[in-house]
Amino acid sequence: MKSVNVNRNIIDLEYAVRGPIPQRAAKLKQQGKKIIPCNIGNPQALGQKPITFYREVLSLLENPNIINREKYLSQNPISKFENISNHAINVSEKLLANMETGLGAYTDSKGQYFIRESVAKFIDKRDNIDLSKSNLQSNPNNIFLTDGASEGAKGVLELLITDKNDGIMIPIPQYPLYSATLKRCGGTQVNYYPDEDNDWALNKEILDVSFKEGKANKIKVKAIVVINPGNPTGAILDKSSIMQVIEFAEENNLAIIADEVYQENLYGGEFISFAKAIGDKNIPLFSLHSVSKGYYGECGQRGGYLELRNPPSVSNSVLSFTELLFKVSSVNLCSNTIGQALVYLMVSPPQKGTDAFEVFTKEKETILDDLLAKATIIRKSFEEMDGMECFGKIGALYLFPRMNILPPNTTDYDYCMSLLEETGLCVVNGSGFGQKPNTHHLRIAFLPSKESLQGILSLWIDFHNKYVNQ
Amino acid sequence: MKSVNVNRNIIDLEYAVRGPIPQRAAKLKQQGKKIIPCNIGNPQALGQKPITFYREVLSLLENPNIINREKYLSQNPISKFENISNHAINVSEKLLANMETGLGAYTDSKGQYFIRESVAKFIDKRDNIDLSKSNLQSNPNNIFLTDGASEGAKGVLELLITDKNDGIMIPIPQYPLYSATLKRCGGTQVNYYPDEDNDWALNKEILDVSFKEGKANKIKVKAIVVINPGNPTGAILDKSSIMQVIEFAEENNLAIIADEVYQENLYGGEFISFAKAIGDKNIPLFSLHSVSKGYYGECGQRGGYLELRNPPSVSNSVLSFTELLFKVSSVNLCSNTIGQALVYLMVSPPQKGTDAFEVFTKEKETILDDLLAKATIIRKSFEEMDGMECFGKIGALYLFPRMNILPPNTTDYDYCMSLLEETGLCVVNGSGFGQKPNTHHLRIAFLPSKESLQGILSLWIDFHNKYVNQ
Repeated sequence: MKSVNVNRNIIDLEYAVRGPIPQRAAKLKQQGKKIIPCNIGNPQALGQKPITFYREVLSLLENPNIINREKYLSQNPISKFENISNHAINVSEKLLANMETGLGAYTDSKGQYFIRESVAKFIDKRDNIDLSKSNLQSNPNNIFLTDGASEGAKGVLELLITDKNDGIMIPIPQYPLYSATLKRCGGTQVNYYPDEDNDWALNKEILDVSFKEGKANKIKVKAIVVINPGNPTGAILDKSSIMQVIEFAEENNLAIIADEVYQENLYGGEFISFAKAIGDKNIPLFSLHSVSKGYYGECGQRGGYLELRNPPSVSNSVLSFTELLFKVSSVNLCSNTIGQALVYLMVSPPQKGTDAFEVFTKEKETILDDLLAKATIIRKSFEEMDGMECFGKIGALYLFPRMNILPPNTTDYDYCMSLLEETGLCVVNGSGFGQKPNTHHLRIAFLPSKESLQGILSLWIDFHNKYVNQ
Repeated sequence: MKSVNVNRNIIDLEYAVRGPIPQRAAKLKQQGKKIIPCNIGNPQALGQKPITFYREVLSLLENPNIINREKYLSQNPISKFENISNHAINVSEKLLANMETGLGAYTDSKGQYFIRESVAKFIDKRDNIDLSKSNLQSNPNNIFLTDGASEGAKGVLELLITDKNDGIMIPIPQYPLYSATLKRCGGTQVNYYPDEDNDWALNKEILDVSFKEGKANKIKVKAIVVINPGNPTGAILDKSSIMQVIEFAEENNLAIIADEVYQENLYGGEFISFAKAIGDKNIPLFSLHSVSKGYYGECGQRGGYLELRNPPSVSNSVLSFTELLFKVSSVNLCSNTIGQALVYLMVSPPQKGTDAFEVFTKEKETILDDLLAKATIIRKSFEEMDGMECFGKIGALYLFPRMNILPPNTTDYDYCMSLLEETGLCVVNGSGFGQKPNTHHLRIAFLPSKESLQGILSLWIDFHNKYVNQ
């Protein structure tokens, strides 16, 4: 075979989080340079410890033979070695009993039913749902367990897009999963611009402008993506922003795709889920969550879920939207079972009275406190960088400061590449996420240890002030 | 949102392995009927035990805290409880040292480099490659670790297909992943028909007929899919078949997609990999393997790999084929780390001299012997079913008998549905995989225990002879 023409959509798609700057960082690392990888929200790669209770359970699930021995040991403690908690043993036994066949068998393509039930209960509890009103309850049959959240988003977009005139509204800046997947599916991206100077808030005017622009270009907008807390901005949407998105979606007959994977990463502000905010309005909602973020940060184990609420009726098939999504997921057979088990653990934290509670709570609080402390240190250092401004309450795992000063004929890409070369700090340029024309940003994940931050931040401040004033 | 038009390709795709018959089986099961699920190659769902050594390692990887304790215990054995093997502890320590950040971090989007290196070594050893000829060696940079094999196949097809005039040659019958994915990507399926009565062998004539038919329909065929050992047929391709595929691909400038996930499931016959058979011919080869089959059967843990050999040059992009595939996989971030670890274990079995060797070897042999015994019992029972004929050496996890007699105006779908309703045995109709016009088949996975087979086979024989002679 001499050469081949390949799919244009794949050639065109871009994914900066693992794009040229991180690839250059990987090269430099090979050459022996010390790299601090803040290009991606990958907490355990930067030393965050996994939650002990989760790992105890997963370990027992992989090798149920040791459960009995653990029981024995818990009755005969060997003082030199800490024991696995009884709660971990109990939860493992419960999981194994419900999974019937353990981790090694394909599950239902939507994932284990009892795990989907536990997800539904978690959602209702989180949203304080009045359980006497059954129409507001989450339905396990409309929940799909997925390999991370990305897979759920892809499934929905692939189903919604029929051709290049179908559009999806995407916030700018955005997590490039959305632009890349939309490109891959052959649809059109319709940008909207949260109000940066107003803590990245949203209002109907902003959304209307974007929708009308789409319409003028003959684009049929089918859904709006909202990322809350924001990625890359880290901003937390207030109630007014959320209610205006809902009103806008209702008026314009749109579905809402709510990326809520950072719902536990709030350091101030309040998380309001779209499921809660929609209430009994009949607006199709696809909401995403993941085990990769929060205080758990189990990125590598690829667990997540997609919840459909008010799935739209389908005009060109006898199958329902949920049935069609099921068909797509059945070709993949199922998501990985460890990821499924982690979703269960994420939605079923140890309760007071169990022997796992104390350690779990301490680990959780330490991680979240630590993240806030690190975000605060970094944000404070921006004050010493000329023209660096950062908006929004602190959420997610990122800061997304605006660079109001850059030397003539340079971009934030140039800046980030130089920063990497000079200091080893790997961040992503704002243009990798999209940004308002003539603005410049960068995204930094606030994950390195406090110790390593001290060193790198003073280097960065020096670099910055030299660079922008050159 | 009132209703929405959705992607036609998704509406049209079909996946019988989890289609109407298995869905009916799930309903019956809910109603309390005993179902024997032979619709899918899911060994652990039917009681096959996981390989102890694998699970010991995975368990230690999830909770490294217990490694030290295990060491302690191995020096202080508690007679009532068997210990984890020292080899499992050593391998776990090695894996953790190489993974740097354990299971909880995203890895390189292609998967951990050292695991890809071990895959490359496995391939070279399997194929008896002369390591002095470096051009024949497998290259870790062209290996992608994936969530099961399906993901790799999808990535390649999605990249190869540019529009509906692009075609892929697919064996009929085939594993419906290929037809479904091709439909999803908007390409065209070009059927070819292995010679059933001749043990499903292939020859150039068969392939030429299909290629010319494609050409007559203005289809540009880009690649040929070969599944060896076969799914659904279970047949093993002989050397002549394989060499003729290679000659054909070379003549017609095609890539080969070799689905070799059943390479350890041979009960007679010999496995010849396409990588080995191609030798130094410059034919693009995409070969797939998985932890779901073989004697391991770890379906739920979703591990696999895709190897590219002689990747084609790309005429419409400056990026190479491998770089484009990398871009697609980077949007998914990475495959799950437990699946990656399992791929490592699959390609690095315990060697003689380690304390895991004996148990591992015994478990492996028991499982493979058992599979053969069960296949033989089922195949023997076909002799008692009127008009039932089964061809090919026994391979993979399936038998795919032809039903030469069916009542007028009935199909193999009707037959399989009735079989399910009357006996609880869930198999898949041949039409779910495609078959030569006017032939009828079914696929049965030979996985139920010997005990449960005894009962169900006599029921099936009775059902069959009554049904076909009605």
